[in-house]
Amino acid sequence: MESCKVVENVYLLVVVTLISVLQNVFFAQKVERECKNRNMNTSAFERVSCANRNCMDAYPTFLAVMWCAGVCLSQAPAAFAGIIYLLVRQKYFIGYLGQSSQSTPGYLFGKRIIFFLSMMCIIGIFNYLLWRFYGSDYKEYMETITGAASALLLLP
Amino acid sequence: MESCKVVENVYLLVVVTLISVLQNVFFAQKVERECKNRNMNTSAFERVSCANRNCMDAYPTFLAVMWCAGVCLSQAPAAFAGIIYLLVRQKYFIGYLGQSSQSTPGYLFGKRIIFFLSMMCIIGIFNYLLWRFYGSDYKEYMETITGAASALLLLP
Amino acid sequence: MESCKVVENVYLLVVVTLISVLQNVFFAQKVERECKNRNMNTSAFERVSCANRNCMDAYPTFLAVMWCAGVCLSQAPAAFAGIIYLLVRQKYFIGYLGQSSQSTPGYLFGKRIIFFLSMMCIIGIFNYLLWRFYGSDYKEYMETITGAASALLLLP
Repeated sequence: MESCKVVENVYLLVVVTLISVLQNVFFAQKVERECKNRNMNTSAFERVSCANRNCMDAYPTFLAVMWCAGVCLSQAPAAFAGIIYLLVRQKYFIGYLGQSSQSTPGYLFGKRIIFFLSMMCIIGIFNYLLWRFYGSDYKEYMETITGAASALLLLP
Repeated sequence: MESCKVVENVYLLVVVTLISVLQNVFFAQKVERECKNRNMNTSAFERVSCANRNCMDAYPTFLAVMWCAGVCLSQAPAAFAGIIYLLVRQKYFIGYLGQSSQSTPGYLFGKRIIFFLSMMCIIGIFNYLLWRFYGSDYKEYMETITGAASALLLLP
Repeated sequence: MESCKVVENVYLLVVVTLISVLQNVFFAQKVERECKNRNMNTSAFERVSCANRNCMDAYPTFLAVMWCAGVCLSQAPAAFAGIIYLLVRQKYFIGYLGQSSQSTPGYLFGKRIIFFLSMMCIIGIFNYLLWRFYGSDYKEYMETITGAASALLLLP
């Protein structure tokens, strides 16, 4: 029962992490397939390899900030933002492959989601400090507001 | 005492993480040494650099899934799978260095272990949901089965 | 209140993680800016890209070992070491940009801090094992010593 309590607070985050791992494996298999055809089509290999590297560079940052947000404030909006991030990443990866190397999309992506998750962390820490020094706990209001604000991520 | 309880549930995972950090430093030192001899032996530098990059690309994925599996289900099989993964990675790295650049091993490695750890996460979450909605807790059976199944990872 | 307890033990680590995320975004924006000027100044793009890659390669290792140290022993020295690491990384990145490609700083940086954080993990686990098998808890002494030892990181 003890450990079920731990799982209760993070299980949505674990689900999103698993989906992201699945996506990483998908990306890696794309790279491996292109690597075998490297002699035939060099530019395709370079594009898929570059797209994969950009995604992998941003991956630890994303994981860290999503878990911090989920642990500090509440897991449902964090997991929702994580899912949106994975969709954005998928679109970025596909977009990288389809285009010619001259007009590749930029290096950064998902800035808005990372910003939203960072905000969640900061709100969670402020709430903790308020609770510690003033004894007031606004966590429930914060969670409601964050849940509503996470819908804004759906805007294109 | 409070924080000793936290350590109790994760200390094997911390040990595996520390060993993996040690291995990362070993890999990085190999890269640094070859980098200094870069002018003499370009292909050796490229091989070691590529092996290191492939290992580093997969590292956050591995860490995330190992910790999730350890927290969601039980730490001993997760840490065991982590050790096996580190051995596979060591073999992959060494294999990369020894061969000519034409016949390098593929980009992906340790797929079976990542799959096993993901399964552990999924079982842990299912068990939590069962416990929440039906009140039944099969965690002990699960842990026994997982412990036994982790021996299958030793198969070559 | 329940989750405030969780936040209590990690909030400094979360703050350091957020700062590191901010720094990552700063690095990534530098890369993106140089990428747009790629045709004009290839060597500058290569330097900034290489500096960013080296920093990103070491990032998951740093995060993992900082969080382990913070959870296993105590968060204040771990967060302090994390801040020092971020300063070292900033200096490394800037140093990489300023120099010509022939005399770039090495691949590894922050070895002393990673070593200190690993030591903290090992001490935390030893303390847990002592507590489990002998019932003695030296955690407070350890925390005091670690706090004092972390000042040594300020030595150049």
